[in-house]
Amino acid sequence: MTPNISASTASNKAEFYQDLELQIQGVTDGQRNWVTNLANSSALIYHGLRAVTEKPINWVGFYLLDQSVPSTKQALILGPFQGKVACTNIDFGRGVCGTAAAEARTMLVKDVHEFPGHIACDAASNSEIVVPLVLDGRVIGVLDLDCEVTEGFDEVDQAGLEVVAKYLVQACDWRGVI
Amino acid sequence: MTPNISASTASNKAEFYQDLELQIQGVTDGQRNWVTNLANSSALIYHGLRAVTEKPINWVGFYLLDQSVPSTKQALILGPFQGKVACTNIDFGRGVCGTAAAEARTMLVKDVHEFPGHIACDAASNSEIVVPLVLDGRVIGVLDLDCEVTEGFDEVDQAGLEVVAKYLVQACDWRGVI
Repeated sequence: MTPNISASTASNKAEFYQDLELQIQGVTDGQRNWVTNLANSSALIYHGLRAVTEKPINWVGFYLLDQSVPSTKQALILGPFQGKVACTNIDFGRGVCGTAAAEARTMLVKDVHEFPGHIACDAASNSEIVVPLVLDGRVIGVLDLDCEVTEGFDEVDQAGLEVVAKYLVQACDWRGVI
Repeated sequence: MTPNISASTASNKAEFYQDLELQIQGVTDGQRNWVTNLANSSALIYHGLRAVTEKPINWVGFYLLDQSVPSTKQALILGPFQGKVACTNIDFGRGVCGTAAAEARTMLVKDVHEFPGHIACDAASNSEIVVPLVLDGRVIGVLDLDCEVTEGFDEVDQAGLEVVAKYLVQACDWRGVI
């Protein structure tokens, strides 16, 4: 019953993201439950990235489309994550997560305090990257990472996390989300 | 949007569990989505308990009823958690989690290596407590905590976690689980 994955032996972020892709394929093999797959993916990214980089990454997780809001309004609701307790509801267009969802594009924010309307879920966070999950042209959620220092993430993270997001969208059944 | 909870100032586990009840009521206020509530509850328990106790607690999370298995068989599937990547599927009756689910009672295991059929999800774990989530007499999931040392949990944890489990069962809508 031990998960069929090998620990990453990456010595840099580019290698880490190559390993991560294989690890996520390993833990999602034969499993399409989105809660299960996003929970394990959060753990792989959080613990792996903290090990390979010296940056104090303090939150890795997912927000998904909230089906409980009226269809005239779009909002995100907290999904599986690693890190401290988090905001539960984020309207499309609000903060870094809501902007990534509304604009369907990655937000790489080197200093969250300079981002208009930043939502301070954890005062310890100073930089953030948010990658949208896009299924058939529609945003169904976002992958969100926070770091305690400014410039916690760069274009290598963006490229690696966009591959992960794209893979997960296809690897899961989204019952309850769409 | 910052979660409406205060950090626990507990100096011992009994106080911690009193605070925890209020914290979980705070983060679940006005929110009945089970994924969201179990994700935040895992974070509150994991980070809070690691701060108040000197025990190296390494995993806190939930397994839920797996609706994808045939009705003749009962199994658990991984839900939200804090800790390293975990086993995704556990049959009722298998290991500590599966036994707690099958017998609908808390398993307080001081040394997992002495538990028949223990599932080694993380070789670092040496003790475990598993509390069933029971709705209308039916087990719908379990709350699972692992510790890296033997005797990581005691009757104070059992009492506190049973209160949490009972509260969460009533505080969530279980769409997709039951």
